[in-house]
Amino acid sequence: MRIVVLAGGVGGARFLSGVKAWAGPGGSVTAVVNVGDNVTMHGLTICPDLDTVMYTLGGGNDRQRGWGRAGETWVVKEELAAYGSPQSWFGLGDRDLATHLVRTGMLAAGRTLSEATAELCRRWDLGVELLPASDDHFETHVVTENDGTMHFQEWWVRHRGAPGVVRFEFDGAATATAASGVLAAIAGADLVLIGPSNPVVSIGPILAVPGVRDAIVKSPAPVIGVSGIIGDAPVLGMADRCLRAVGVECSAAGVGGLYGARSSGGLLDGWLVDTVDAGTVVDGVPVRAVPLWMRDDAATAAMVAAAVELAGR
Amino acid sequence: MRIVVLAGGVGGARFLSGVKAWAGPGGSVTAVVNVGDNVTMHGLTICPDLDTVMYTLGGGNDRQRGWGRAGETWVVKEELAAYGSPQSWFGLGDRDLATHLVRTGMLAAGRTLSEATAELCRRWDLGVELLPASDDHFETHVVTENDGTMHFQEWWVRHRGAPGVVRFEFDGAATATAASGVLAAIAGADLVLIGPSNPVVSIGPILAVPGVRDAIVKSPAPVIGVSGIIGDAPVLGMADRCLRAVGVECSAAGVGGLYGARSSGGLLDGWLVDTVDAGTVVDGVPVRAVPLWMRDDAATAAMVAAAVELAGR
Repeated sequence: MRIVVLAGGVGGARFLSGVKAWAGPGGSVTAVVNVGDNVTMHGLTICPDLDTVMYTLGGGNDRQRGWGRAGETWVVKEELAAYGSPQSWFGLGDRDLATHLVRTGMLAAGRTLSEATAELCRRWDLGVELLPASDDHFETHVVTENDGTMHFQEWWVRHRGAPGVVRFEFDGAATATAASGVLAAIAGADLVLIGPSNPVVSIGPILAVPGVRDAIVKSPAPVIGVSGIIGDAPVLGMADRCLRAVGVECSAAGVGGLYGARSSGGLLDGWLVDTVDAGTVVDGVPVRAVPLWMRDDAATAAMVAAAVELAGR
Repeated sequence: MRIVVLAGGVGGARFLSGVKAWAGPGGSVTAVVNVGDNVTMHGLTICPDLDTVMYTLGGGNDRQRGWGRAGETWVVKEELAAYGSPQSWFGLGDRDLATHLVRTGMLAAGRTLSEATAELCRRWDLGVELLPASDDHFETHVVTENDGTMHFQEWWVRHRGAPGVVRFEFDGAATATAASGVLAAIAGADLVLIGPSNPVVSIGPILAVPGVRDAIVKSPAPVIGVSGIIGDAPVLGMADRCLRAVGVECSAAGVGGLYGARSSGGLLDGWLVDTVDAGTVVDGVPVRAVPLWMRDDAATAAMVAAAVELAGR
C-alpha cells in the first residue's frame, strides 16, 4: 500500500514514525512536508519541519526537547550571542547546523531542495521518502496586531507566540511549484493521510502550493485526516492561536470542517478524532473516534490502522 | 605616526601584534589584509587571514595551533564528516563558524566585506584598523602539475601543499577594487610596512588588487619590508614552495629582490633581514639585519623599532 502523508514538524514526525511502524519494512510511505517554516539566517537555508522529520525518523532527534538533535551542543549559538547577533534567539545547535551547511552548500551549487533533502537523508536511512512540498522558497509570515509582520519562526520562537495574530500569509507560495514527485506521489497513492499537524501553519502551507490541493481532491485514493486537537486543545504547539486567527473553533469538529468533505469539494473521506471527541460531526465526512495520543509508535500505529480501516469503509 | 601594514595570516598577525605593541595605546595602525585565501564553503564566506588577524589581535586565537579560536570545539566538523561532506577536510571549528555566519549573513543582506569585518571587530577590540584588501571576492588558485587547478586552501590544507605547483593565479583580482579606505590609508601613511608574510600568496594577492601597488609606489611614506625568510627557510608556512614556483630563491635576498627597490619602480625603501642573513644585498635597497624571530610582542616590537629607524635613515 502506497501511503502519502502530509505533515509538519514535531507532531507530523511522530505520526510518520507510527505510519512507518504500521507499514513495516516493505511499506511505501512518502512524507510531503511543510516548507513554510523555512527561514534564511546567516545566509543559511534552515528547514525546521523537514529536519524534525528527518531526525525523528532517522533516530537522531532529541526526544525530550522534541526538536533538534540528540546530544546537541550550543557553542555556535553562544558565539553568535557574543557577536550580538540579532538572530541568536533561534535554536541553532551545533549538530543541527551541519545539516544546514550541507543543504546550503548544495543549494548554492544549484541543486534543488528536494535533491539536498535526499542527500541529507542518505545518512539517516529514514525508511520513508521525504519530500519538501516545494523546492521554491516561500515563507509563512505572521501579520500581528501591534508588532508588524514577521516570519513565523520569529513569532513563535523569538516571541513565544505572544503577539496577537491578524492573519498568516504564505509569502511566495502562490508562485511556488510542487516539488518533484509530490503530485505524482499523491496521484499514485493508495491512501492519503493528513497528519495531526497544525492545520493552519503546517498543513496550510502545503495546500497553498498550487496544484497540491487539487491533486488531493482528484486523487483516486481515500483521504483520511487525523485531528491534532483533542478536546479543546492542540496535542502540541499553538494550533489554538492559529485557528482563532482564521476564525475556526479549536476542536476536532472545527478542524474537520476546515478541511471539509471531499464530496463537497473539500479534502476528507474520513476524519479520525480522539475518543474524548466521540460524537463529533463534520458535514459529509465519516468520523471515527479512537485514542489519538501518540505515546509511542505502537499507539500511533494503532491510529494508522484505524485510519486504514476508516478508508476502507 | 600612522602605520599601514600589509599582512597575511599567522605571521602577519604576529607581526601586527608587535606593531600594535610598538605603537602603544595612542598609535594608529591599519592592517591591509590578504583576501585571496577567502573561500566559499557550504554557502559561507570564509576569510582565513582576516580572521587570524582578528582573533590574534583580539586575544581570541589558539596560540598553540596558530590559527583559529582558543577553546575551539569541532562538533559541526564531525557532523559534516558524518554527512560525507566533501569539504570536511577544512578546519571549520564551532567558534570560528559563528564568525563566518555573522559575515555571511551581512553579505547576504548587501553589506560589504569591509562593513562585515568592522562589525565583527567590534566584539574583539583589536586596537588596529582591519581592512580587507578588497571587498570583491577573488581567490588564489593553484595550477598544479598533475592534479589540475584548485583553490589555495585545498592545495595547502587538504593536500598539505603536496601537489607540485606550476603557478598561482589570483582569479578575479584583475577586476577587483581596493576596499574602502585602503588606498587612502596608504596615501596618508607615515610608514608602510610589508609584513613577514608569504610574498607570493599573502602579500602577492594584496598587490594584485588594481591600484594598491601603485598607491604604495606613489606614497610619500617610506616603505620597509620585513623578511619572512630566515636563512634559507620560511619562519612559518610554505613560502619556499611558493617562491620556487615563481622562480625566486628562498632567501632574504631573493624576496627583497622580488619586491624591488622603490628607486627603480619597486616597493622597498628598506629591507629588514635576520642577523643570520647579515650581508644580504638587494639592488638599490638599504638592508638592515636584526633578530627577526617573533618570539613575543617585545621581540616583534623591537623589529618594528628597527624598521622605523631604517625608514628614517
